[in-house]
Amino acid sequence: MTTLKNDTFIKALLRQPVDRTPIWMMRQAGRYLPEYRQVREQAGSFLNLCTNPELACEVTLQPLRRFAFDAAILFSDILTIPDAMGLGLYFTEGEGPKFKNPIKTASDIYNLPIPDPVTDLRYVVDAVSLIRKSLEGSVPLIGFSGSPWTLATYMVEGGSSKSFQKVKSLMYEQPQLLHIMLDKLALTVAAYLNAQIEAGAQAVMLFDTWGGMLTSEDYNEFSLYYAKQVRALLNTTVDGQQIPTILFTKGGGLWLENMADSGYDALGLDWQTDIHNARARVGDKVALQGNMDPVALYAKPEVIVEKVKTILHKYGNGPGHVFNLGHGILPDINPEHVKAMVDAVHEFSPVYHQ
Amino acid sequence: MTTLKNDTFIKALLRQPVDRTPIWMMRQAGRYLPEYRQVREQAGSFLNLCTNPELACEVTLQPLRRFAFDAAILFSDILTIPDAMGLGLYFTEGEGPKFKNPIKTASDIYNLPIPDPVTDLRYVVDAVSLIRKSLEGSVPLIGFSGSPWTLATYMVEGGSSKSFQKVKSLMYEQPQLLHIMLDKLALTVAAYLNAQIEAGAQAVMLFDTWGGMLTSEDYNEFSLYYAKQVRALLNTTVDGQQIPTILFTKGGGLWLENMADSGYDALGLDWQTDIHNARARVGDKVALQGNMDPVALYAKPEVIVEKVKTILHKYGNGPGHVFNLGHGILPDINPEHVKAMVDAVHEFSPVYHQ
Repeated sequence: MTTLKNDTFIKALLRQPVDRTPIWMMRQAGRYLPEYRQVREQAGSFLNLCTNPELACEVTLQPLRRFAFDAAILFSDILTIPDAMGLGLYFTEGEGPKFKNPIKTASDIYNLPIPDPVTDLRYVVDAVSLIRKSLEGSVPLIGFSGSPWTLATYMVEGGSSKSFQKVKSLMYEQPQLLHIMLDKLALTVAAYLNAQIEAGAQAVMLFDTWGGMLTSEDYNEFSLYYAKQVRALLNTTVDGQQIPTILFTKGGGLWLENMADSGYDALGLDWQTDIHNARARVGDKVALQGNMDPVALYAKPEVIVEKVKTILHKYGNGPGHVFNLGHGILPDINPEHVKAMVDAVHEFSPVYHQ
Repeated sequence: MTTLKNDTFIKALLRQPVDRTPIWMMRQAGRYLPEYRQVREQAGSFLNLCTNPELACEVTLQPLRRFAFDAAILFSDILTIPDAMGLGLYFTEGEGPKFKNPIKTASDIYNLPIPDPVTDLRYVVDAVSLIRKSLEGSVPLIGFSGSPWTLATYMVEGGSSKSFQKVKSLMYEQPQLLHIMLDKLALTVAAYLNAQIEAGAQAVMLFDTWGGMLTSEDYNEFSLYYAKQVRALLNTTVDGQQIPTILFTKGGGLWLENMADSGYDALGLDWQTDIHNARARVGDKVALQGNMDPVALYAKPEVIVEKVKTILHKYGNGPGHVFNLGHGILPDINPEHVKAMVDAVHEFSPVYHQ
């Protein structure tokens, strides 16, 4: 494999010294870019775009042509796994993801197959290989998956949800059934991330988008426990290189101490969590990734630069910070505003790494 | 005024000894009750129900006829204040509240009037008087208002929002304008709560439903600061009796230490915050109200009873706990499940007060 020309992202995740704070952005390949919307239209549907390795590769590379991001992230969807389990993922305009065959009964859970990602999610593995090759060592490639809990919410609700009534009712009334399902999901997620690592992913991130909807004790039992299971099953050394791991629970700011003990190298922070306070709480255990308010990108560039400076200052001196938003970029942001953020991170961060 | 026959709620808020943990429930007068739906239909619209003191009184009392709640809460809406400021509140079926004249320009903010609640929100004041009289001292009556920040979000967005783009853009780009608006709202909210206290409210609660969407520093500057302003302006002694005050920021679990220093007697907790941990963090400064997951009420009564016991046990011995949900009851909950919760709190809490 080609040597990595820019390894600041990998080093920062491993809390090693760097010259400046690296930056990438959740959903950096996405609708805010006109060139993305063009490829999306060409693909005909969002799912076609996800399942076509060439097109997925193209949109993954697009933001890197515009902005000096320090990492690329595989373009895909977190719901590829339930789809490979036979739930029949589809998208309806303006309504988000849905499943033709959501989990409804105990036997649906007992009969849920554990897919083999190398065969059943071949299109993802192929996309990772192709992107890694196309990057030519410019920046590292991030692989990712939804967390077992987050996948379970969609699989039981049949799509997005507000109150999570169905999956929580299962959790409260038949916790052992939900555990069987989460166990299968943890095995699948680990195999999926390992397949991405084998195909060339140089870091992996677990998106626990809905862990924050749980009570503290349910978070530990139904979300974090399975994130740890996944972590324990990952092959994180490839050719002598360490593959760093990131855990992101949106709304998980109350539980950072537990998350920092879960074996991941870095924690993603949402924008509500103060990064100075978070660093004091997790100490030397993990790197931190985040955490500008995605809505701040609507503001004019001068304001964006000030927000960047505040977050850099709050994190403070020394290694272990990867700049990011606290959640995915919103679809109607002006790309010039993204440039203002990226350039500000590179301009104003070196002073914290002397 | 009649002597209060059941004052456990008031005493618990003031951290005084009680025999058992009091309970009430956010949205206890609401759609989950068939008798509420009947009055709502009779009223013709939700707004008609809010603005008719007799009907508002009737639905306030309904849950007390079914369940042994230790407090009544005024039936009203948090958006009465912006309506009285001339924004023209209306409701569309299934879409939530909207304003005919949302705040769009600087002069909208400069021209925003500060209403006199006694004349401009007479229907609320009359409802409070009537409910207080009708309760005949059985349990105390809670008055409430939306927080200045939460009201501002609706007033600038023109209704409910997901990303709060408009109000946050105002915050990031013209913070001084937002401060002018929040200042007017703080004065109005304080006058509104004082009018409710004068009319007979025996405790008051500030609902900061959207404070949790802010970053830590923006929460302090744009939400908590104005909650403190409101608190400082409240007349909390009536006929030698103290009127306890409650501050509830949904999603505010990260900021409890600051909230506990804001002058309120009690903090409302959402369900994500661990109440044992919260008590350790706030110490003797405030009472705590909460915090069962509202979705747990879908579970069968045996499960509900276990959840109640867990929360009572987590809070532990001694005064200062008011049992509640972590957010409003959902509209399709079985009333029998509410009964299971209320009775369990009364049955299993005395041991913590010996």
